[in-house]
Amino acid sequence: MQRKGLFNIWLICRILGILILLNGVFMLFCLPFAFYFGDGDWEALVKAGAITIFSGGIASLYARKVGYSQEFRKKDGYIIVSLGWALMAFFGSLPYLFSEINPSFADAYFETISGFSTTGASILNDIESVGKGILFWRSLTQWIGGMGIIVLAVAVLPFLGIGGMQLFVAEAPGITPDKLQPRIKETARRLWWVYAGLTGVETILLMTGGMSFYNALNHALTTMATGGFSTFNDSAASFSPYIQYILIIFMLLAGTNFTLNYFLFKRMFKAIWNNEEYKYYIYVIALATFAIGVTIVMTTDLGVEKSFRDALFQVISIITTTGFVSADYTAWTPFATMIIFVLMFSGGMAGSTAGGVKIVRHIILFKNSFLELKRQLHPTAIIPVRFNGKAIKGSITFNVLAFIMAYFLIFGIGILVMSAIGVDLMTSIGAVATSLGNIGPGIGTVGPVDNFAHLPDLAKWVLSFLMLLGRLELFTVMIIFTPYFWSRF
Amino acid sequence: MQRKGLFNIWLICRILGILILLNGVFMLFCLPFAFYFGDGDWEALVKAGAITIFSGGIASLYARKVGYSQEFRKKDGYIIVSLGWALMAFFGSLPYLFSEINPSFADAYFETISGFSTTGASILNDIESVGKGILFWRSLTQWIGGMGIIVLAVAVLPFLGIGGMQLFVAEAPGITPDKLQPRIKETARRLWWVYAGLTGVETILLMTGGMSFYNALNHALTTMATGGFSTFNDSAASFSPYIQYILIIFMLLAGTNFTLNYFLFKRMFKAIWNNEEYKYYIYVIALATFAIGVTIVMTTDLGVEKSFRDALFQVISIITTTGFVSADYTAWTPFATMIIFVLMFSGGMAGSTAGGVKIVRHIILFKNSFLELKRQLHPTAIIPVRFNGKAIKGSITFNVLAFIMAYFLIFGIGILVMSAIGVDLMTSIGAVATSLGNIGPGIGTVGPVDNFAHLPDLAKWVLSFLMLLGRLELFTVMIIFTPYFWSRF
Ligand SMILES: [K+]
Ligand SMILES: [K+]
Repeated sequence: MQRKGLFNIWLICRILGILILLNGVFMLFCLPFAFYFGDGDWEALVKAGAITIFSGGIASLYARKVGYSQEFRKKDGYIIVSLGWALMAFFGSLPYLFSEINPSFADAYFETISGFSTTGASILNDIESVGKGILFWRSLTQWIGGMGIIVLAVAVLPFLGIGGMQLFVAEAPGITPDKLQPRIKETARRLWWVYAGLTGVETILLMTGGMSFYNALNHALTTMATGGFSTFNDSAASFSPYIQYILIIFMLLAGTNFTLNYFLFKRMFKAIWNNEEYKYYIYVIALATFAIGVTIVMTTDLGVEKSFRDALFQVISIITTTGFVSADYTAWTPFATMIIFVLMFSGGMAGSTAGGVKIVRHIILFKNSFLELKRQLHPTAIIPVRFNGKAIKGSITFNVLAFIMAYFLIFGIGILVMSAIGVDLMTSIGAVATSLGNIGPGIGTVGPVDNFAHLPDLAKWVLSFLMLLGRLELFTVMIIFTPYFWSRF
Repeated sequence: MQRKGLFNIWLICRILGILILLNGVFMLFCLPFAFYFGDGDWEALVKAGAITIFSGGIASLYARKVGYSQEFRKKDGYIIVSLGWALMAFFGSLPYLFSEINPSFADAYFETISGFSTTGASILNDIESVGKGILFWRSLTQWIGGMGIIVLAVAVLPFLGIGGMQLFVAEAPGITPDKLQPRIKETARRLWWVYAGLTGVETILLMTGGMSFYNALNHALTTMATGGFSTFNDSAASFSPYIQYILIIFMLLAGTNFTLNYFLFKRMFKAIWNNEEYKYYIYVIALATFAIGVTIVMTTDLGVEKSFRDALFQVISIITTTGFVSADYTAWTPFATMIIFVLMFSGGMAGSTAGGVKIVRHIILFKNSFLELKRQLHPTAIIPVRFNGKAIKGSITFNVLAFIMAYFLIFGIGILVMSAIGVDLMTSIGAVATSLGNIGPGIGTVGPVDNFAHLPDLAKWVLSFLMLLGRLELFTVMIIFTPYFWSRF
């Protein structure tokens, strides 16, 4: 069939329909827990699942009936990704709406987009009182979101040319098209197995630490997604040191490029350490942990092990944008709190489930800023940024700089909007930084021991949009709001 | 004589010597006020002036005796500008040190670099008790600093290739090398006359509002330099509406590209309004004033005129980086305070005495960010940023982006360092933003009704360095700390 119009509408409809349908099937996966724990929310899950499967099914079947061209263009990609995430969150909020929690639509949508975007900011005042079936759905939204991000990072974003992703995913050291399987589909499948496999291993390790299967699975799902939803009100604060260390290790893995995790599985250790982004990822974690650990040791009597464990846990939780909390970083010294705040703008590695700016972009930024001074002394020389030993095309460096600029621009505008809504300055700064970076806890009244329930509805919608924007690497969503997108050329 | 070595040391010595000598002569200009008001500081001025003239004289004469090549290279330029400003501040602090204020060296240096950098942050707890001769020196440092910046912007920075300055100064609309005098020296002299002329006119206008000649001259000197030192403890808060409006108008002029002020003098109004940077400068002021004015009207009973006057005064004072205060913006609603804070990163027009990022760089940033989305849809097309109707070279856009990045990077590092010294977060943010932007008042404990006296000495040194860095468009100073600068190639 011939393609018509600006977009391949029926192809878009078909794909979105299938996504929504699968979303509904996932809801039904939560039923065993609802039955086992005997809470009253199984009806909510069945109702939500049925509506979602039905809606998705109708859309995809209707699209097939109308018929669609297989031709897939960039513009279709932007629409599918942005609308897909937003619609998943819409249908995903149904279980909450039908459940005993009985939230407002703003609250339900916030909690769901916070899940699918792997942010982990919550409007629930008492997590432990929520039915286990619904709580499992909450964790599952993050795991689905994390899976979606891996597929995006490997297969979709490089194709769309977002923020230099084409570079970072393809150019992991030692990978040449003939060495790792050249077919994107195969790569995506392989990384997905790494994702699922690590989730399974973490579940087992958490259980050996004395956690129940239910809690272990929930935390494994939200760790690997760098999501950070916990089934406990105080997040990871009451866990044993053993369990906290398990979480530390798996947060670290979840924030690592999944291609490197595959190398780890294949015991290709040299390829991992030769990766420049990985090196800086570890360096930054070590440095921040050391600086914070020393201040905690000096200003409290928690002892060396506990002080450095608290420091390491919070540093890794924030840099990987997971958002688990084992200590209240806003109660630390201003210097230590400030380091955590700065880390909110770091993000993990590209090609992981972590959000935020990502380490690789910071490397390009720093190198380029430094080289710009060299360029000034030698105006006629062409001095490219080098990454993993290769010169980077100027257009990609440009795109990375534009991304970081856009990130801070949106950060600033977000704070202005939140202030205009009437939220105090510290809370605005914290809420916007943590939402845009898909982290979870912020500062001010949305700190690590607070939640987002008290914010005005309008603020929740703004933050929901910021979570989506951050998760989809900004440009995927922003581009839809430009006139270029809607013109034929 | 043949040039030897990495730098033309004796040429540098000669120029710095002359600058220091002139600095000493300026100190003696303050004597009439010390005598007229009969305060005890005339001896301090004489002593400081004598030492400064003697030191500068020795250096310049010795350099002439040794002999120096006339060959002037970029690297010599960076050294002269950076070292020149730092040394001027060193000798400039002598009058304070010898005076009855008897400050620590950290305090005296802070006050002086705050003057020469036209920042206007002060460590004086009771300005009105300071001798009139010393106080005049304080205002004069700002005026000298402002004059220095105009010369830099027109003649030196374009030559050094800093942050795209070559573009903005040369390409004022309607200027072609044959239309405006092509010789840089003549242009600099002309703009200097505009600077001096406007200072004179403002002095007279302030006197017609009932100000004494002494106070009028002081405020005129610090307005045209966008410096913001006042001779009153409460800055401009007690002034009559008439005087506040005069200050508003002259702050606006001081933040305008001085080439446009020359056009104003020549009644070339169309050339002014056709300037894209000027247009946005006015738009941003109007928009911010409107938004803040409305919130003040709604939340207080100050009345419409006073509310909008307060809004306009503070908006213009901050965006032009002057820093006069007629109302405490930290006591406004969070939204209004936040707008003021965002404006701290705007800065005035390039080619004015204003500090900060500057409007033109923001224009390039916004346009480029927007176009980057277009580039993403059309990866093979070359899409340059256009400014004042002309396409800008990619390397200049790159340099502008790198500048803004460096600005925010230094902002972040500055906050971290201040926090590490033990300064609270809000104060750190405010002090770093206002120092780097050469503004004056900040937020937290260095707000518009506070001063910087209570900060630790180390923090004052950090802020002093930031003032210098900001005033010299970052790169001029930063480049000296790179290995490229010290290599022969
Ligand atoms: K998260
Ligand atoms: K100032």
